[in-house]
Amino acid sequence: MRIGLDVGGTKTDAVAVSPAGDIVGRVRLTTGWGADEVVKTIRDAVAAVLREPGVNGDPLTAIGIGTPGLVEDGRRVLHAVNLGVDDLDLAGALEPVLGVPVRVENDVKAAALGAHALRGGADRSMAYLNLGTGVAAGIVLDGTLLRGSRGTAGEVGHISVDPAGPVCRCGQHGCVEALAGGGSIAARWGQTGLHPVRDVFDAADAGDPDAIDLRAGLARGVASAVRILILSVDADVVVLGGGLTHLGDRLLDDARAQLRASAAASPFLSSLRLDERVECLPAGSPAAAMGAALVGAAVEEREVLTHG
Amino acid sequence: MRIGLDVGGTKTDAVAVSPAGDIVGRVRLTTGWGADEVVKTIRDAVAAVLREPGVNGDPLTAIGIGTPGLVEDGRRVLHAVNLGVDDLDLAGALEPVLGVPVRVENDVKAAALGAHALRGGADRSMAYLNLGTGVAAGIVLDGTLLRGSRGTAGEVGHISVDPAGPVCRCGQHGCVEALAGGGSIAARWGQTGLHPVRDVFDAADAGDPDAIDLRAGLARGVASAVRILILSVDADVVVLGGGLTHLGDRLLDDARAQLRASAAASPFLSSLRLDERVECLPAGSPAAAMGAALVGAAVEEREVLTHG
Repeated sequence: MRIGLDVGGTKTDAVAVSPAGDIVGRVRLTTGWGADEVVKTIRDAVAAVLREPGVNGDPLTAIGIGTPGLVEDGRRVLHAVNLGVDDLDLAGALEPVLGVPVRVENDVKAAALGAHALRGGADRSMAYLNLGTGVAAGIVLDGTLLRGSRGTAGEVGHISVDPAGPVCRCGQHGCVEALAGGGSIAARWGQTGLHPVRDVFDAADAGDPDAIDLRAGLARGVASAVRILILSVDADVVVLGGGLTHLGDRLLDDARAQLRASAAASPFLSSLRLDERVECLPAGSPAAAMGAALVGAAVEEREVLTHG
Repeated sequence: MRIGLDVGGTKTDAVAVSPAGDIVGRVRLTTGWGADEVVKTIRDAVAAVLREPGVNGDPLTAIGIGTPGLVEDGRRVLHAVNLGVDDLDLAGALEPVLGVPVRVENDVKAAALGAHALRGGADRSMAYLNLGTGVAAGIVLDGTLLRGSRGTAGEVGHISVDPAGPVCRCGQHGCVEALAGGGSIAARWGQTGLHPVRDVFDAADAGDPDAIDLRAGLARGVASAVRILILSVDADVVVLGGGLTHLGDRLLDDARAQLRASAAASPFLSSLRLDERVECLPAGSPAAAMGAALVGAAVEEREVLTHG
């Protein structure tokens, strides 16, 4: 039995995964604020998922955790602004209490692994494109996460695709994230609301020209990221996830229409059938927590090899 | 002893590589036009390189060939316009005559492998960016060429980075290749000459505003490709090669200056030190032929496993 947790700014999603790889229990708790409360949330979520009816008492062997922010050495979380965490040795805080190996991974990379597994693990190459406040991707090649040696693999959010585009928080103009990141869209929309990007879609439907521009920019940004991922690593499929995918088909249809429009002018692009190679995680998908469980399992195997 | 050949539109470069991996002989011949003449050029080059003084009579075990165009099954060349070849079973034509396994690879992918080997083979991730008539990259991760399952890995030349940019031969606007491909630059320059891109650089130095624009566009295209390769696959280093790199430091300095300019506005990009991670193959580098020899060696090993 392994447990995977996706620790987000609002919710923590925890799954228990059987040795056969099936999700046999799942709970979601509100994430506490700051280092101590994040550790407590994780402990509470582990305890709660172990009480789930499908969890049959198999011994717990490993825990994997996906978090925002920078992750160091698979153990430490840095600069996770959404969690109120500046520097936290998460594995060090949890291992003595939980008694099993703990491994920490960037949440987008974990979600990429989880999406790959939940799709059956057969994709030779898959990219997971996370559309949240920011934009980043995780790339899975032959079942293995592409990590890169300096940690920028999948950072397609900060590739500029339009020198005349909006300024990005990274300082460049027309980055994918400046066009398609929820934070950038909300800031440019400028109106308050719990779901600013949904508000933009609704206002665009109602004919507001600013909203129409913002919504078109989102589609352009997503389409650019899809083209980048397919023309650099030859991803067979690009799976969209993250907060903005709560928009569901409204987002996916826009992105596909944009991909078709760009392909209409280009026999080369057209031959790649990009619009058929972009998909969306279903609402409420446990991909990120599932991927975290896989990350934890990798530690478990290594531990067995080291000590056994 | 293996032989690697890079069959280009004008020259065919052949190297003999010792079992220890050293280049012990090298010849360059003019490439004949059309299928029959291409086969003859390769046979002549193989015979000539085997007569080189450093080639000491070790038995020839495998031949690898890098060619432009589409390569099918490691054996067949399709649509190699520069060679006058539409469809040629190159391995099938050569194996009966030469008596050793022959493997064919796309020339850019072969050059990527060769550049990786000539750099000592230690780069965990390296991208080779070929700047010729067109623009394409080969990506080497942990010593292995990233092939992708549909053959578009490294096709960064057809990623659009400026919707207001020049039309690309692929039909899109502002592709990397539309900015940085020798064919696009020559067509937009519009003046005849043996070395149109060098003429553009000279005219830019002399103050011609159109040439200054074209030259700046080339730097923008190269810088964009470098950012794409580093932010998608986290290439440690991007090595420039291909016909345009005959411009040497004039090209490299422009690209580095452009990378520094884009980083100046972005602490994130600045932290990646992109300008220090782009390099240029030395003039006359045997990277492509060397890579072809490595591709041939891969067949040799497989043959040994299959038959041995």
